[in-house]
Formats: sequence, structure tokens, C-alpha cells
Amino acid sequence: MLSRAELTAQILDAKRAKNLTFEALGKAINRHPVWTAAAAYGQATCSAEEARALLDLLGLDPALAPLLQEPPLKGSLEQAVPVDPLIYRFHEITQVYGTAIKAVIHEMFGDGIMSAIDFEVDIQKKSDPKGDRVVVTYNGKFLPYRKW
Amino acid sequence: MLSRAELTAQILDAKRAKNLTFEALGKAINRHPVWTAAAAYGQATCSAEEARALLDLLGLDPALAPLLQEPPLKGSLEQAVPVDPLIYRFHEITQVYGTAIKAVIHEMFGDGIMSAIDFEVDIQKKSDPKGDRVVVTYNGKFLPYRKW
Amino acid sequence: MLSRAELTAQILDAKRAKNLTFEALGKAINRHPVWTAAAAYGQATCSAEEARALLDLLGLDPALAPLLQEPPLKGSLEQAVPVDPLIYRFHEITQVYGTAIKAVIHEMFGDGIMSAIDFEVDIQKKSDPKGDRVVVTYNGKFLPYRKW
Amino acid sequence: MLSRAELTAQILDAKRAKNLTFEALGKAINRHPVWTAAAAYGQATCSAEEARALLDLLGLDPALAPLLQEPPLKGSLEQAVPVDPLIYRFHEITQVYGTAIKAVIHEMFGDGIMSAIDFEVDIQKKSDPKGDRVVVTYNGKFLPYRKW
Amino acid sequence: MLSRAELTAQILDAKRAKNLTFEALGKAINRHPVWTAAAAYGQATCSAEEARALLDLLGLDPALAPLLQEPPLKGSLEQAVPVDPLIYRFHEITQVYGTAIKAVIHEMFGDGIMSAIDFEVDIQKKSDPKGDRVVVTYNGKFLPYRKW
Amino acid sequence: MLSRAELTAQILDAKRAKNLTFEALGKAINRHPVWTAAAAYGQATCSAEEARALLDLLGLDPALAPLLQEPPLKGSLEQAVPVDPLIYRFHEITQVYGTAIKAVIHEMFGDGIMSAIDFEVDIQKKSDPKGDRVVVTYNGKFLPYRKW
Amino acid sequence: MLSRAELTAQILDAKRAKNLTFEALGKAINRHPVWTAAAAYGQATCSAEEARALLDLLGLDPALAPLLQEPPLKGSLEQAVPVDPLIYRFHEITQVYGTAIKAVIHEMFGDGIMSAIDFEVDIQKKSDPKGDRVVVTYNGKFLPYRKW
Amino acid sequence: MLSRAELTAQILDAKRAKNLTFEALGKAINRHPVWTAAAAYGQATCSAEEARALLDLLGLDPALAPLLQEPPLKGSLEQAVPVDPLIYRFHEITQVYGTAIKAVIHEMFGDGIMSAIDFEVDIQKKSDPKGDRVVVTYNGKFLPYRKW
Amino acid sequence: MLSRAELTAQILDAKRAKNLTFEALGKAINRHPVWTAAAAYGQATCSAEEARALLDLLGLDPALAPLLQEPPLKGSLEQAVPVDPLIYRFHEITQVYGTAIKAVIHEMFGDGIMSAIDFEVDIQKKSDPKGDRVVVTYNGKFLPYRKW
Amino acid sequence: MLSRAELTAQILDAKRAKNLTFEALGKAINRHPVWTAAAAYGQATCSAEEARALLDLLGLDPALAPLLQEPPLKGSLEQAVPVDPLIYRFHEITQVYGTAIKAVIHEMFGDGIMSAIDFEVDIQKKSDPKGDRVVVTYNGKFLPYRKW
Repeated sequence: MLSRAELTAQILDAKRAKNLTFEALGKAINRHPVWTAAAAYGQATCSAEEARALLDLLGLDPALAPLLQEPPLKGSLEQAVPVDPLIYRFHEITQVYGTAIKAVIHEMFGDGIMSAIDFEVDIQKKSDPKGDRVVVTYNGKFLPYRKW
Repeated sequence: MLSRAELTAQILDAKRAKNLTFEALGKAINRHPVWTAAAAYGQATCSAEEARALLDLLGLDPALAPLLQEPPLKGSLEQAVPVDPLIYRFHEITQVYGTAIKAVIHEMFGDGIMSAIDFEVDIQKKSDPKGDRVVVTYNGKFLPYRKW
Repeated sequence: MLSRAELTAQILDAKRAKNLTFEALGKAINRHPVWTAAAAYGQATCSAEEARALLDLLGLDPALAPLLQEPPLKGSLEQAVPVDPLIYRFHEITQVYGTAIKAVIHEMFGDGIMSAIDFEVDIQKKSDPKGDRVVVTYNGKFLPYRKW
Repeated sequence: MLSRAELTAQILDAKRAKNLTFEALGKAINRHPVWTAAAAYGQATCSAEEARALLDLLGLDPALAPLLQEPPLKGSLEQAVPVDPLIYRFHEITQVYGTAIKAVIHEMFGDGIMSAIDFEVDIQKKSDPKGDRVVVTYNGKFLPYRKW
Repeated sequence: MLSRAELTAQILDAKRAKNLTFEALGKAINRHPVWTAAAAYGQATCSAEEARALLDLLGLDPALAPLLQEPPLKGSLEQAVPVDPLIYRFHEITQVYGTAIKAVIHEMFGDGIMSAIDFEVDIQKKSDPKGDRVVVTYNGKFLPYRKW
Repeated sequence: MLSRAELTAQILDAKRAKNLTFEALGKAINRHPVWTAAAAYGQATCSAEEARALLDLLGLDPALAPLLQEPPLKGSLEQAVPVDPLIYRFHEITQVYGTAIKAVIHEMFGDGIMSAIDFEVDIQKKSDPKGDRVVVTYNGKFLPYRKW
Repeated sequence: MLSRAELTAQILDAKRAKNLTFEALGKAINRHPVWTAAAAYGQATCSAEEARALLDLLGLDPALAPLLQEPPLKGSLEQAVPVDPLIYRFHEITQVYGTAIKAVIHEMFGDGIMSAIDFEVDIQKKSDPKGDRVVVTYNGKFLPYRKW
Repeated sequence: MLSRAELTAQILDAKRAKNLTFEALGKAINRHPVWTAAAAYGQATCSAEEARALLDLLGLDPALAPLLQEPPLKGSLEQAVPVDPLIYRFHEITQVYGTAIKAVIHEMFGDGIMSAIDFEVDIQKKSDPKGDRVVVTYNGKFLPYRKW
Repeated sequence: MLSRAELTAQILDAKRAKNLTFEALGKAINRHPVWTAAAAYGQATCSAEEARALLDLLGLDPALAPLLQEPPLKGSLEQAVPVDPLIYRFHEITQVYGTAIKAVIHEMFGDGIMSAIDFEVDIQKKSDPKGDRVVVTYNGKFLPYRKW
Repeated sequence: MLSRAELTAQILDAKRAKNLTFEALGKAINRHPVWTAAAAYGQATCSAEEARALLDLLGLDPALAPLLQEPPLKGSLEQAVPVDPLIYRFHEITQVYGTAIKAVIHEMFGDGIMSAIDFEVDIQKKSDPKGDRVVVTYNGKFLPYRKW
């Protein structure tokens, strides 16, 4: 059978061949384009309906659905530190602003973290005469550290 | 003279001793708390006025101002991959959602990146009966790849 | 002022000099010995009362309390992969049983994780004629992956 | 012949196709689901009966049994530091609480380690109105350091 | 379908078989040889016309064009630090002269960076009786750090 | 006596205190600002006159001259992969365009390298209504591979 | 107070100054020279008598005894892979003969490991006309893998 | 033709299929089981007779003999630091006892090393009522450092 | 078509099958055995005549010649630090004697390097009653650092 | 007392202050300049006479002699892969020519290595009208692999 990585390659090939966007795929399953892309890249788990709808839209074998419904081994990069410039900028923000973000979150919320599980990402285009801006919003539940 | 790392330690000691927040420090220099924290952690460059005001508020030697006005060697973490759980979650988001975010930005903007230089971060607390949420917004100029 | 690492060294020196255990320290602040040790090693945040009581019991300067009350930069090991044999065994368990634990948690709970924040550790000694056993219990809230 | 990694892939494919759980597989061989999953992932050694029963239940070639009966080259992760969020949390616990756990085990047992060989893992779901909890128990023989 | 790496291999094979240079390929699409080589190595995105012209000149399947038009996952080296001596020299220049280049750019432009996106490279041969010289010119937009 | 790193710190402190630029320091010793900065950062070797003139202008102890005249252990970064965003962009250029630059240099010059020793760097500011540009020129002797 | 690393330095300085061998130190505490050296290097835990006797023989402050009696954070090398040629050869043996040793131990004992805790090392000199030989004996309890 | 790694896989498959031990293979070529296993794992070089005898006993193609007679690229592990628990214990011994072993060998032999080339390994099972022991003996020529 | 790594494998297979030495291959193309081996391992560039002669002698497809004539992506090891004991010794020499060699070359030549491009290696066997000696000679042009 | 690294710094400071060369130091102790430099950098062990003569010539405290007579923890570089360009070239030679050198040594000597212990380095300047050449000779005993 296919590995999850081979299924991702099949999905991306079919998406390219059919000239589909993640927005279109997302609409078909009532999900945000970023979540849909994450599912395609093997980083999220589909329900049976989502799996069926995605494979159907892409013209792929419906027998692959169970693979999409299984919690995958996550991690979409091949290196600890990403090399692709777009993805690296997110790493750089963590490197440069990480301690500042930590300090301000602790100031606002106390000791704890922003969950990356009870979490969602949104991406918007904001027009600007000096050049459009990418606005990425991370929205995660605050989890206070339990003391015992 | 002090190294930049020693100046950061002095600033954090004085801030703790005077029980000040980054919000308060930011107000004194008309800057966002995250930018102010970044400046404190040696990740951003102050103007002469900002340096003077910060040192004054913290009760530190005004002769340290030129060190705050010099572009620092940036990078606030000691490792390539952060270990602190709050900061690690931002790394995890890049690892898990990096390819999805890349795909959707390319879909919306074409080939290019979100700048991490012409860029700002905001952090908000969003009340939620199931637990407050941390909302972090990245806002960076889209830079299309130049072809030549 | 002291760095957090220097404060940890002072705490451990005082604890040794006074021949105190983490159990005793924990009792003084109504906390579990593991949490108390984590606080001593700079991995957890004390309340004002906890900080005061700890410093008092150890005979350390009460002016150090604010340092104990500040969320620390966490990560108690100097390497990504621990070298100390006792600590390494925990890494080995993750290496050898990590995929099995993941599979079984997903089987029991669906896609999500065991929180390491809303989390506690307990350690017990279980007598056994063939050699006493160490029983370490991890107890963390299950966090289901949010889909959006 | 198959490599051990290819056999793992076959086992996981068959398990998915037959919609079996590790709990079911474990019952068939009288083993705990975590141990059974470890065997499936190539981290433990089956007896002849266990190998035969597993392959039979999964509908795989019984000639593969000797591969399951051979002590495998262990280590189930592809990186030194895991990236998958569920598995990473176990690494984070070692990073954050490692020194505290070490200190408390030494306090209770003296110098030595918790064995990761004479060792077992259990996973339980504990209902909680604020959200179910994952309870993972490590149970390993204490091995005191030999002096000579 | 082909992966991007396999397409690069096909392009390089066809280029070798047809004895073409990147200069010739670049002329056919009105692009600089370095940009053309970058596109061939999977580091830049072709327009539909560029993709068609390249595949046509190389005698490759025109159905591969969409793969060339998709923003690739960039990063042309297999290691963090390059090993090939020609490429390593560029790494060495960054290692040896990096802090000096940083200091002089900040002196001339203030705090900010040279963009690697709004950027182009040129390579010239400069005759010299003591041995020809390679002249590589990096030309990138200065991006001042935004303060907020 | 001072280590080379401590001498670099002294030079940078004196330069800041006297409000000097690398351009000014370079003029005093008839050297390019980038070379002068490299010497300051411990990456190049001064002649006796250059060492004397630099220390004199900076008001530092002339007895330090021999340290400046000794070939230093080169490498100005603390990591294999730089983290500072300005310096990282040079690493990124090597990562993204490295194979393309290699291919074009080989096409123009045959097998060999651009020397990083018989080499110089120049930096210019090029005005541009859309934003000034940083133009960095690498000029190194071509060294053909010797065959024997 | 001293850190464990500083105590190791003091012990080695005193041993050199008094021209003592680890054999002599070992005799004084009734321990093998290798175990004694391990204790000196901060890799093993002394009893109260051993600590007292060692410090006495070395002429060091008896108040340091509790530091020697505390289980240390073990790991005597500064790198994951040792660089010193004598120590590297042991790493090389693991690299070259590791899989063979594993296979033969499993053949003789079944699945399990040689303990490195219930373990001792001996070193002997074996005269040989072609050059004396170093004979190092590892003696560790076999620990069979527990199945559950 | 086969790569050395593929030949190793064939040898191990044949050995399993024929239910042979390394002891039996070693007897057939008059070699120690550990050396024989090392040859099987591609870490040692067979003579023509040894190669012929091994392939014959395993029922493999005699034309593969030259591959077994060629000095292989040695190194049997895929990582710098082994992950398999049995092999890791040997790494741990080097980490924990490396400096002690070095000190004692220098004390007994002067400056030099134990050769890992003019070297042999033996493994014995030593019965013990508290649990059998693995006794591994390293026997290498002492090589004194040459001074010139 | 073949990748360069596959061509290396073909060359080594043919060389083994025909029982040829690098000395013999080198004679056929009038090159030193080390250079010839480097070309075989994909680390040097053949002329058309050399490529033709090599392929002819080895009985390989003459259409592969262009691949041998193309400057390869160099670097013959799979790791940053070699594991094979013979190759590792060269790494160890760099580790142990690197700073001494650097100091003496600077003492004899001033600041600069030994070229690894305008460079050749020779290997000789020197008979010695105590054991033959390997004499490896590195001969590289001295390149003085350019100042500008 | 001094650490070995501090003693190296003292030796280099004294050597600079007295304007001595390693050639001169070597003559004073009847040793080659490279060996003498290695001893200075903490990579070789002096006899009592050598230690005394070196310290005397450098005007250092004769009480430091025992530190020079003790086998040091070797390894003169701070990284696994050297960054200094002169030293890196030796690493590059190992990377590029390592497999070729290995193949030719095996061809000439059979399976075994060139010792890096029973070993010496020589450096000569060879005049050449096109530029002087650095000739570095490695001379190590061949050690054949023992089979057992």
C-alpha cells in the first residue's frame, strides 16, 4: 500500500493536474484552506466524510480513505531548521522575537503556553499601497502550567 | 564595557526590581510591548530618545545608550531548535503547518515570502469560556521573488 | 544580580549544606517533591509564599524571591539528547516505545496529545523481592487536535 | 526478503485493512497493547507462538515469523529529537523535568537508574469533567550503580 | 508523476545530451543564466511561456510545464554546510567576512538587511594577467527593520 | 594578555565611544572599510603600521599591536549556520542559488573555484526610487583544479 | 561553593602536585583504579568514608565531602562523539563492531543488553614481544528485555 | 551488481533462513564469531577462502566473493550516536568512563592509545546466581605516541 | 540516465570484475592513481580522452563520457565527520595537529593557506623493518591572503 | 592551578612577547617545529627536560612543568568541522580525496590504516616561479587489520 508520503505526492499531483486550489478543496470539505493543506501534507486527520470528499474531488482511489483518517506521524519539514525561504522566515521570527513573545505572553497570562493543538492558523491578504501584506494569525488556547 | 548580553541582563534585573512590565516600558517610548521586549533582549535597535527614555525609566547608566542604538547581532535563542515549551510551540507550528502555510501563501500571493523585517507582531488575549486564547498576529510585507 | 542558573546553584548548595531533601522542601511549601525539585532547577514558577518559604528554609536572601516568581526559560539539560544515564533512559523509552505509545494513545483517545503543561509527574518506590522498582507516572490532560 | 521496516509497513497496512486495534492484536497474543505495538513497530522480539498468531490474525505470510523472532535494531524515531507533537511531549518532559526526576529518584533510591529494559509501560484513560487525562506509567527495576 | 528533483535530473540530462549551456537556455527565455540555472535546479518559478520554451528546447514532455510553474520547496544543497569546494567558498566568505559585511551595511544603511528575494546575482569573468577573476555581484533591495 | 576576542571587544567599544566608522578607520590605514572591519573582528592580519595606526586612532594600548599582526584563527560566527537575519541572507543565497552559481561558473571557467583568499568584497549603495539597493561584489581569482 | 567540575579540577591538581596515581588513590579507599578515576572525574558516588579518605590523601578541604557523596550528573565528555584519540578508539570500536557485538550477544543471551550500571571495567597490561597490549574487560549483568 | 549493504542483507536473510549462528559460520572459516559477524555486516575483509566458504555455507552466489574480499567502507551504525539500547550501552560506557579509562591507560602505559586495528574482541557468558554476566574483552596493541 | 553516484558504482563494479587497479587505470590515462581514483569516485573532471579511455578499459558504455567530463558536485563522504577508520585518521590529524600545522605554515609563509585546488596528493610505501610506513604528501600552492 | 588551555594561552603570549618562532622553540628541545607547536597547543606530552627547557626559554614558571608532562585531552579544534580557512582545507582534502586515498592505500597495503599515533608531519616550502608551494608530508606506520 501507499505510505503517507506517497499519498501526499499523489494528492499534490492530482491537485496540480486538476488545477485545484486548497481553497477549493477546503470548500468541498467545509474546512479552512490551511487546515486542508495540512491534511494534504499529512499533518492532520480527516473524518471519513472529509477523506471521501477529498479523494473524490481529486479523482483518487476511495480505498485510500483509511490512510487519511489515521493520525499521521507529524512534522512536514525534512530538517530541524527549514531551508525554504518562506518557511525559514517563520523560524527566524521564532529565533529573533521568541524571547520577546515569551515575555509578553507571560506578562499577559502568567506561566503557561499557547497551545499548538487547540490551535488554528488564518492567513489574510491586506492591501497596502506600499505593497500587500501577509497577515498570519495564530489562535491557540492558553494553557497554564499545572502545579502539584 | 558591557556586552549586549550583559546589558540585557541589567535591563531585566532593573525591570524586575522596579516591578515594571514591558507594557509600561513600551508606553514610555511609544512602542508596542513586543517590540520593546525585543529591544530589551537585544533584538532591535533603539533611537537615541528611546534608549535614553528606557535607561532613565530603569534607573540605568545613560552612558549605555549607544549600545542600545547599535544594530545588534540578532538571534535570541541559544539553540537552533528552542527547548523552552512556550517558544517550542512556535517551532512546532512551523514544523507541522510550515508546508501548508507555504502552499496557501503561494496560492494567494504567488512565489515570494512574508517579510520578517518589514514585519510586526501583535499579541492579544481573547476571552473564552472554555479557556482564554492567545492570539498572535504576524503582519509582514509580501515580497515577490524577483526574476532577472 | 544572580542569574537563574546561579540561583539554582545556590539552592542546591544550601540544600546540601543543610542536608535537606526535596521531600522536606516540598512539605514546607505543600508541593510534590518533583515539582519542588523542578522549581529548584529553574523549571517552574513559585508563588510569592512558596518563594519566601523556600528561601527561608534554605537560609537564602529573601530578596531573591522575585527571581523564583518569574516564569523561567525552561529546559534543564545542556544537550538535545541527555548523556546522564538516569536521564538518558527516559530518552531511550521515547526512542524505543515512542511510536507504540503514540499508536495506543491515538487508539484510545483519537488524534491529539497528552499535555506536558496541564501535567504532573509522580514517582513511587515499589518493593519487589527481585529488586525494588521505580514507578513513574505521567498524568497529562488529553488535548484533541482542533480542526477549523 | 523483507527488511524489518518493510515488515512493519506490511503489518500496519494489514491492521488498517482489517480494522484491527493494538488492543485486539495484544489480546490474541496475551500481551499488553503497548508491547504489541512495540513489536509491530520493530522494537520488541516475539516468541514463535506470538509471531505465528500475529501474522495469522493479520493475514500475512507465516514465513515472515523468523523476522519477528529476531532481536531487532531498536529505535523507532528517525531523528535524535522527535518532531511529532505527541512524541515530542515525552521529549519535553525529559528536557523540563529530567533533572528533577533524577534528583528525586536519587533521593529515594540512591545512585542508580530506572531500567528501560526490565521495564513496562501502561497507558490509561482517566475521565475528568475538565477533560479526560492520559495516565502513562513507567515501571522499571531500580538498578543501583555497582562500585568495584 | 515526477517529483521536482526528478524533473531537475531530467533537465540536466537533456541539457548534457543536447550539449546546451545555461547561457543558451537563458537566451531562449530571456533570462539571465544564473536565474535559468536556478529554475533548472528547482529554485525558481517559471511563467507558462518560460516553462514551455525550456521544455521545448530540451525536448522534454510539455506536460511537465505545470511542475515548473509551481513555487518549489527551495534549498539546493543537501547539507546545512555545503561540502562542494566551489560552493563552500561562498559559505566561508559568510563565515569569515559575515560580521564585517554586517557592520559595513549597517554603517551605510542603518538597521536592516539586503533582501535575498528582491535580489539578483550576476557573474562575470574579468581577465587578469595573473589569472582571470570571478566577479559575483549580489544586488538586493535594502529592507529597513520596521519598528512598531 | 588579551585574547583576540577580547581585543575585538575593546576595539568595538573604543570605536563606539569615539563614534568612529569603519570607513574612517579604513581611511586611516588606507584600507577598504570591509577589510578594516574584518581586521577589527579578528579575521585579517594587520601590518605593523596598520596595527599601530588603528590602536592609535582608537586610543588603545600600542602594546597590543603584535596581536593584530598575527594571523588569527578565522571564523567570525558562533554557529555553522548564522542566525542573525542580515548574515543569514548570505547563507540563504548560498543555499538557494549555490548550485546555479556553481553551474554557471563551471560553464564560464571550467572546473575550479572562485578563491576566497585572493579575494575582495566591496559594498555599494545604489539609489533606487523603489528603495535603495545593497550591491555586494565578490571578486576572487579563478583557481582551476590541478590534475596530476 | 565549588561546582562538581571545579572539584574535579582541584582533585586533579592535587593529584599532580602530590605525584599520586589513581592506583594509589584506589588503594587508599579499597577501590579499583578505574572506579577511583571515575569518582575523581565526577562519574561515580563516594561513600562518606571514601570521600573523607580521598580528600585527606589529596590534602583537600574535608568540607567538600558531601559533594563527592552526591550522585553526579554523569557524562565525562564535552561532545557526543569524543575527539581525544585514545577515547575515540572506544567510539570507533562501537561504530565498527557494534552490530557484530550486538548480534553475538543476542545469539548467546537472547534479546536484552549488557548493563552499564551493574557493570565494571578492568584494564590490564599484557606483555607481548611485538608490543605490549592493552586488555580492557567490560563485565556487565545481562538484562533480558521484559515482555508484558 | 550488489552494493555491500545489499550483500549484508542477503547474508543475514540466508543465515536466518538456514537457521545458522555466527558461531557456526565462524567455525566454517576458522574465525571468532565476532569477527565473522563483523565480516557479515561489512566491517572486515575476507580472504578468498573465507569468502568462498561463507557464501557456500549460506547458499549464496559464489560470484559475490570479490565483494567480500575488498576492504569495505567501515562504520556499521547509521548515526554518530547509536540508538539501539544494546549498542548505546557501549557508547554510554565511553561517555561515563572514557576519561577514567584514559587516565588509567596513561598511568599504566604512558601517552599513546589502545589500537582499534591491531585489536580483537571476545564475548563470554559468565554464570552468576544473581543473573548471568556479559564479559566483553577488548585486546588491542598499545601504540605509544611518536615524537619527532 | 545514470546519476554520478550510479556511474561511480558501475565503475567500481567493472573495476572489480576486471580485477583492475587504480594504478592500471591511471596508466591508461597518464594520471596518478590517486587522481584516477578521485575521478572514479566522482571528485574530479575527465577530459574527453580520459573519459573515453577509462570507459573503454572498463568495458562501460562510451555514451557515459559526458557525465565524466562535467565538473561534479564534490564531497566523497556521507557525513561531516568520516566514520571509516582509515579516513577518520586523516580527520584526527586535522583535529589534533590542525592548530600546529596552521601555526607553522603561517610562520614559514605568512597569512594565507595551502590551496586544496592547485593541489596534488601522492602516496608511497616506505619499507621499514618495524613495519612499512604510509607516506602521504600534500603539495598545494601557497595562497597569501589578499588585502584591499 | 592553570588549566591546560590557560597554559597554552600563556605559552602563546610569551612566545609573541619574546618574538620566538616554533622553529626556535623546537631547536631548544631538539624537536620538529610541528611537534613543538603541537606540544604548545596541548596536543603532545613533553618529557621533563623538554618541559623545563620550554618554560625556561619562554620565561614561564618552572612549576608548570608537570602539566606539560601529562598526556593531555587531545583535540585542538572547537568544532567537529573546522572553520578557519587554512585548517578547513585539510578537512576539504579529506572530504574530496578521502575515498580515493583509502582506495589507493588499500591497493598498495591491503586492509588496514595509516597510524595517526606512530606518525609524524613535516612541512616544507618549495619555491616555484608560479608561486611557492606548501608541501606537507604525513608519515605513519601501516597497521594491518588483525583478524581473529
